[in-house]
Amino acid sequence: MSSDSPKRRYNELRRMVDRRLSALVQRSGPHDVRMALKDVLNAGGKRVRSVLLLLSCQAVGGDVRMAIHAAAGVELMHNFTLVHDDIMDNAPMRRGRPSVHTRWGLNHGVLVGDILLALAYSCVQQTKGANTERLLRLFTQGFLAVCEGQGKDMEFERKNDVRLPDYYRMIEKKTSALLSMATAMGGVVGNGKVGQVEALRQFGHHLGRAFQIQDDLLDVVANEAELGKPVGGDILEGKKTFLLLKAVEEAGRQDRAALAGVMRRGSGSGGSRRKTGIVRKITALYEKLGITEAARAEVHRATHQATRALASLPDNDGTAMLHWISGMLLRRES
Amino acid sequence: MSSDSPKRRYNELRRMVDRRLSALVQRSGPHDVRMALKDVLNAGGKRVRSVLLLLSCQAVGGDVRMAIHAAAGVELMHNFTLVHDDIMDNAPMRRGRPSVHTRWGLNHGVLVGDILLALAYSCVQQTKGANTERLLRLFTQGFLAVCEGQGKDMEFERKNDVRLPDYYRMIEKKTSALLSMATAMGGVVGNGKVGQVEALRQFGHHLGRAFQIQDDLLDVVANEAELGKPVGGDILEGKKTFLLLKAVEEAGRQDRAALAGVMRRGSGSGGSRRKTGIVRKITALYEKLGITEAARAEVHRATHQATRALASLPDNDGTAMLHWISGMLLRRES
Repeated sequence: MSSDSPKRRYNELRRMVDRRLSALVQRSGPHDVRMALKDVLNAGGKRVRSVLLLLSCQAVGGDVRMAIHAAAGVELMHNFTLVHDDIMDNAPMRRGRPSVHTRWGLNHGVLVGDILLALAYSCVQQTKGANTERLLRLFTQGFLAVCEGQGKDMEFERKNDVRLPDYYRMIEKKTSALLSMATAMGGVVGNGKVGQVEALRQFGHHLGRAFQIQDDLLDVVANEAELGKPVGGDILEGKKTFLLLKAVEEAGRQDRAALAGVMRRGSGSGGSRRKTGIVRKITALYEKLGITEAARAEVHRATHQATRALASLPDNDGTAMLHWISGMLLRRES
Repeated sequence: MSSDSPKRRYNELRRMVDRRLSALVQRSGPHDVRMALKDVLNAGGKRVRSVLLLLSCQAVGGDVRMAIHAAAGVELMHNFTLVHDDIMDNAPMRRGRPSVHTRWGLNHGVLVGDILLALAYSCVQQTKGANTERLLRLFTQGFLAVCEGQGKDMEFERKNDVRLPDYYRMIEKKTSALLSMATAMGGVVGNGKVGQVEALRQFGHHLGRAFQIQDDLLDVVANEAELGKPVGGDILEGKKTFLLLKAVEEAGRQDRAALAGVMRRGSGSGGSRRKTGIVRKITALYEKLGITEAARAEVHRATHQATRALASLPDNDGTAMLHWISGMLLRRES
């Protein structure tokens, strides 16, 4: 592959998914619901999960065209989680645009999420030739896990004694589950052997951890313009990120008091000067305690574990692309 | 069967479903979510859809025990619709208790609905021996239809030019779809022939219509204590029921103005004396125009069509019970 060809290939697959999703819009009924669905399905996004599914299928020797329905299904389930999570997190924006419930009202937020899920199952069930039963079992397992992850996340918001092991358990459900579901499903559609499907699942699992900790890291190290939202938002919200929990683990008594203050939330109120002060103080503390470095190391470690899982897969363009995506996620800045 | 044995058999099947649902509670994670789920799953209810599924299985010669997972799945999907619909309809109560979002907050309402759905798929997928793929296709079709029905229902609330044919299309999705899904799924689990599954689907479809119009009728003819909510609630909410739409069809110009007032909603505000006045006036109008009689006739017609669909099924205890249930729904008073 030439140096820019992985990117071209990625975009080619992404557009394949986009086209499949756009084709779903006209199907549903009432005008407002249709428009809200269109908003979600045309809002773009990296389509990471669906592209991973397509490439996992290719990696075990399958034809990506056989996997397009399952890929669309996974992307729809991901979007279902975004729409409902935005309601639960009270998030006004998504991908630089008003979230569904903000633009169309709460009722449409709930219903559009439900419809995305119904369409998701409907798509996965259109997969031909493959072991549909196994595919759907993986899909429902992922669905259950992601609900459990959201439940844990909501519980985290109220708890002030969250520790790193809790964090790992939470992101396993909330982030890794959908990624490992996607890669395993790709392996199943491609008729991969049991060991290959398991390797793909492992790949997705570790990649999910890398992805989530990288996300946490970007909140403090990213450029505001690239991030598309203010730096330090997680700090002000008191979000239990890898950084905050690792810092609590590493801090002495005095620093721990400052971190406990962040955890109790409420830092979000007050003037913007006060907010900037808090973000600066905590970021400096992270630097002092070596937390940003620890996060970087953890992302590298998880990425390495992910790519190591690929070792047992055939050496083909699909597997090469999975390697490339791991690197891309590591280098991403938003 | 002795005269009280159908009722005993019904309760036996209902308890079988209740036990299956109770067994699901412990599985999930955070305390509040678990408690909210327990609330829903132990709140009782007639379990009509799941019992219909079990009996449909028996009617084609299947073993009801084979159908218990699918039956629980259908009941879970029904409860998912109740929890999310209560959010969308802003309903504070359900079965005489606070609705999930009222008691546990909006976030738990959204999440518990999602979890019920995930558990629903998980249950259906546990069905052994049967054609799981076909079963799941029916399940997803029902899911899509019920979302579409809810979308139409939300659209109805804003529209003042709804006509009876629109109403029939709406209840087909919102009410009949889950009933016909349940009966058809029962036929599939029981390994019924194509024609038998279709007959069961038709039975559920017509029964759904009877059920919904009876529901509309009970709002004006029921005893308040039996109904568990104030009589005339639909009138005050301006709900586009069979009665209201039929009345608009039958009314002369002057009466139509009164009905248009009801349709524009807002009758819900004002003192209780004013409310009672409105309910009395519209109920009297319904009587004058012969609307309650028309509704009764329509319920009978739909029930008759439902039982006629059973004619092609084997003459066994399952089929006899399906007949009995049609009669019971017709006679119900809440």
